[in-house]
Amino acid sequence: MDFRGSHILSVDQFDRDDIERIFTVADKMEPYAQRKKVTRVLDGAILGNMFFEASTRTRVSFGCAFNLLGGAVRETTGFEHSALAKGESLYDTARVLSGYSDVICMRHPQSGSVAEFASASRVPVINGGDGINEHPSQALLDLYTIRKEVVAKGRGIDGLRIAMIGDLKYGRTVHSLCKLLTLFKGVHVTLVSPAELEMPYGLVEQMRERDFSVTVTDKLEESIRHVDIAYSTRIQEERFGSKAEADLYRGKFRLNQSIYTENCEPNTVIMHPLPRDSRADANELDSDLNENPNLAIFRQADNGVLVRMALFSLILDVVDQVDKHARDVNWYRHGR
Amino acid sequence: MDFRGSHILSVDQFDRDDIERIFTVADKMEPYAQRKKVTRVLDGAILGNMFFEASTRTRVSFGCAFNLLGGAVRETTGFEHSALAKGESLYDTARVLSGYSDVICMRHPQSGSVAEFASASRVPVINGGDGINEHPSQALLDLYTIRKEVVAKGRGIDGLRIAMIGDLKYGRTVHSLCKLLTLFKGVHVTLVSPAELEMPYGLVEQMRERDFSVTVTDKLEESIRHVDIAYSTRIQEERFGSKAEADLYRGKFRLNQSIYTENCEPNTVIMHPLPRDSRADANELDSDLNENPNLAIFRQADNGVLVRMALFSLILDVVDQVDKHARDVNWYRHGR
Amino acid sequence: MDFRGSHILSVDQFDRDDIERIFTVADKMEPYAQRKKVTRVLDGAILGNMFFEASTRTRVSFGCAFNLLGGAVRETTGFEHSALAKGESLYDTARVLSGYSDVICMRHPQSGSVAEFASASRVPVINGGDGINEHPSQALLDLYTIRKEVVAKGRGIDGLRIAMIGDLKYGRTVHSLCKLLTLFKGVHVTLVSPAELEMPYGLVEQMRERDFSVTVTDKLEESIRHVDIAYSTRIQEERFGSKAEADLYRGKFRLNQSIYTENCEPNTVIMHPLPRDSRADANELDSDLNENPNLAIFRQADNGVLVRMALFSLILDVVDQVDKHARDVNWYRHGR
Repeated sequence: MDFRGSHILSVDQFDRDDIERIFTVADKMEPYAQRKKVTRVLDGAILGNMFFEASTRTRVSFGCAFNLLGGAVRETTGFEHSALAKGESLYDTARVLSGYSDVICMRHPQSGSVAEFASASRVPVINGGDGINEHPSQALLDLYTIRKEVVAKGRGIDGLRIAMIGDLKYGRTVHSLCKLLTLFKGVHVTLVSPAELEMPYGLVEQMRERDFSVTVTDKLEESIRHVDIAYSTRIQEERFGSKAEADLYRGKFRLNQSIYTENCEPNTVIMHPLPRDSRADANELDSDLNENPNLAIFRQADNGVLVRMALFSLILDVVDQVDKHARDVNWYRHGR
Repeated sequence: MDFRGSHILSVDQFDRDDIERIFTVADKMEPYAQRKKVTRVLDGAILGNMFFEASTRTRVSFGCAFNLLGGAVRETTGFEHSALAKGESLYDTARVLSGYSDVICMRHPQSGSVAEFASASRVPVINGGDGINEHPSQALLDLYTIRKEVVAKGRGIDGLRIAMIGDLKYGRTVHSLCKLLTLFKGVHVTLVSPAELEMPYGLVEQMRERDFSVTVTDKLEESIRHVDIAYSTRIQEERFGSKAEADLYRGKFRLNQSIYTENCEPNTVIMHPLPRDSRADANELDSDLNENPNLAIFRQADNGVLVRMALFSLILDVVDQVDKHARDVNWYRHGR
Repeated sequence: MDFRGSHILSVDQFDRDDIERIFTVADKMEPYAQRKKVTRVLDGAILGNMFFEASTRTRVSFGCAFNLLGGAVRETTGFEHSALAKGESLYDTARVLSGYSDVICMRHPQSGSVAEFASASRVPVINGGDGINEHPSQALLDLYTIRKEVVAKGRGIDGLRIAMIGDLKYGRTVHSLCKLLTLFKGVHVTLVSPAELEMPYGLVEQMRERDFSVTVTDKLEESIRHVDIAYSTRIQEERFGSKAEADLYRGKFRLNQSIYTENCEPNTVIMHPLPRDSRADANELDSDLNENPNLAIFRQADNGVLVRMALFSLILDVVDQVDKHARDVNWYRHGR
């Protein structure tokens, strides 16, 4: 695809070359995100960071990515603060807000809303999550993390063995990740969930059509024995009818260090889209894994900044200029 | 008036020369707002964007206008987050907050509050809306839009024919616009509203004293037959005692393409302060007008950025420096 | 202490030299805060301004201090918008958010939370207030103000005579200030409160061990007769079980101009951590004091910006570079 001026709405719009292009640019962003260098390539540009649903992490990650490229950020948070509550159509909101910035990142509770908004926007729009539908930058950072982690261990995405664990019905991150994986070859996917929270059948079919080996199970321990990646997810309480319904499934598939040691191959990478629910009744990934060097969940979050910097650079077509506007960091950097 | 260091609290403070000055500067801002050029003239300056009442559109518009001039923005949104809730006087809030920035834009639900705040502030304050009282930058952008639209059609503001439609009792934007219009000559105003939501009598008198022709009616169709501008407004539900009371008036004066075609002169410009209520029971301006080139409502919103850039430049006295700090845009601009 | 890369969590971490160092740097920041000069020393740096409890004043003060040094600010406000509500641990929040910025300022309703957060953070963290526990930058700005005010009157902090008035039980600002004062010699402290809201005994003991003269009383007028500083505080309604309980104490120790004139020495400085409660039933410091040149409460707020600029400069080790990145202000400055 031609990234210049494009909306980023769905993982469906990428082919394998697009993915490689994004990841190559993301790699290039590392010295800036790690504060070894500063670039001001987008000095004067404005991001409209429109979060009509709360999400501290994703919102701040997009905002920082734009700041790291030198741009300014204007923001909104929460549905209640919006003209939507006064009966304004998404069309109008888009026509107005797109006059205020050079690129928009938008989150909204309603499926399809961001695409509707984008169709009326005069500037490129990145989908920051529209209900249970899509969250493409999350899928990209997940796949980017997988690539980085397995490449470090001498492997590639083709032929990957991955277990996805937890709420596979409502968890849009695993849906999008599965779609992205179908661009690659010979992937082995093990889907671990309660029967009621299984991955939608259409998506499983889609993977099988690509000659993936797909195993569906509700047993955690045996499913993580021969995988490169164990990708755990949170029971998305906010997508259920009630807390009581969510409670039925919470804490079903807990991974901790002793289960890991007993079952996993030595270098199995643990991922999670975050936030992980660390309350006693959930505790999907036990805190005793925090010292495990294969726990990649915080590297995953860091990678989100790289991937978002890459998307902004590609959309605004400044990839080749990033280094030209670079200079040294003149403040003290903590050893991170 | 001398704009340097002045508060902008009310449209009453402007004479005709002031208006012309603001509009001339706003014209000058267009290449920056349209991202043909970037200026960093206010690099290092800080706007305190203090919204003690929610208003995404106005808040982001002010913030972007300041960013487009190169300045930084610190913000607050919502009454509940404020020290006012701990019994702090507006005097104290003003004394403190005015130590934090170079200029303040403030919205507050209470009439007169912004003027009270400004009297204690150590930096210039722009009224971003104080309850049903004033919202001067909205009136300025409305008049600026009228000028731009009618000038494009070979006319001027003197002699303008305008219909104002909807809630003329609570709609502060039409009140302020009428006050600004009294600086001009020979204006023909048609006021279209239910009897209960008529324009306050004092304002009608004020216009008649200026030899305006003022017609008061509750018939939409005949009122839009011979006008240059049809300015529609929203029923301001939040100003009524109850939703039920607002419902009595909602949807009374709907303008759509067929009513437009049947009644209006070919180039009648349609305006609205936005947000327009597009819910089925309101629908003041039907979406079938969206392709009508005379629908100026989004140009109106865009003009808001220009007018606000002009106000900041005049107050902070950098008008003559804007171009000196200009450079080319180095990122891809969408065709907007 | 070595400020480079350090967390600022508690006043306990400072010795007298540290205090002097912070104050010397704060003095150096004055021309920037007063807009006589602009510096861009932190251009490219990002502050994560994480307010998990509302506080307009402190949040904006930190944000402006960072902007004044040239840096960008990413922000969050309010507990409800946070992943904490989805069961995320402070450890995880810290690990993730610290990947997004160069330094974090954090406020949180829970005692000890900021220290817990800091222990997992990969960048320096400044405590912006953790419940009733600590708010070190407030204590520093209070002491900085005392120094500035008494030095202007030919005195120093050693030998200071100060009355602290109001809610001395829950008011964390007076607790922290007392701790800082113990770094100095021969201080005379008069503690004025209702018996139920007395200063915690441990803190009184700590001062007496340093040979402070400490007087405990519930009489306002006699306590302010021979002091350099009268430091008044607000009844912290939000720390009480109910409004009714807070009402018992509200308005007990009101200082106004006539009480001041009758009792105080001519140059007694009046301080308050702000917000002062100006409602009729509280009114700790009457508005008739507003013209009293010894009312230092707004200079106190201004000093907060200086102290916060100093902390950022010390932590990020740019003190010696601030002036190198300086230039003249090119916009109109109000006479402040």
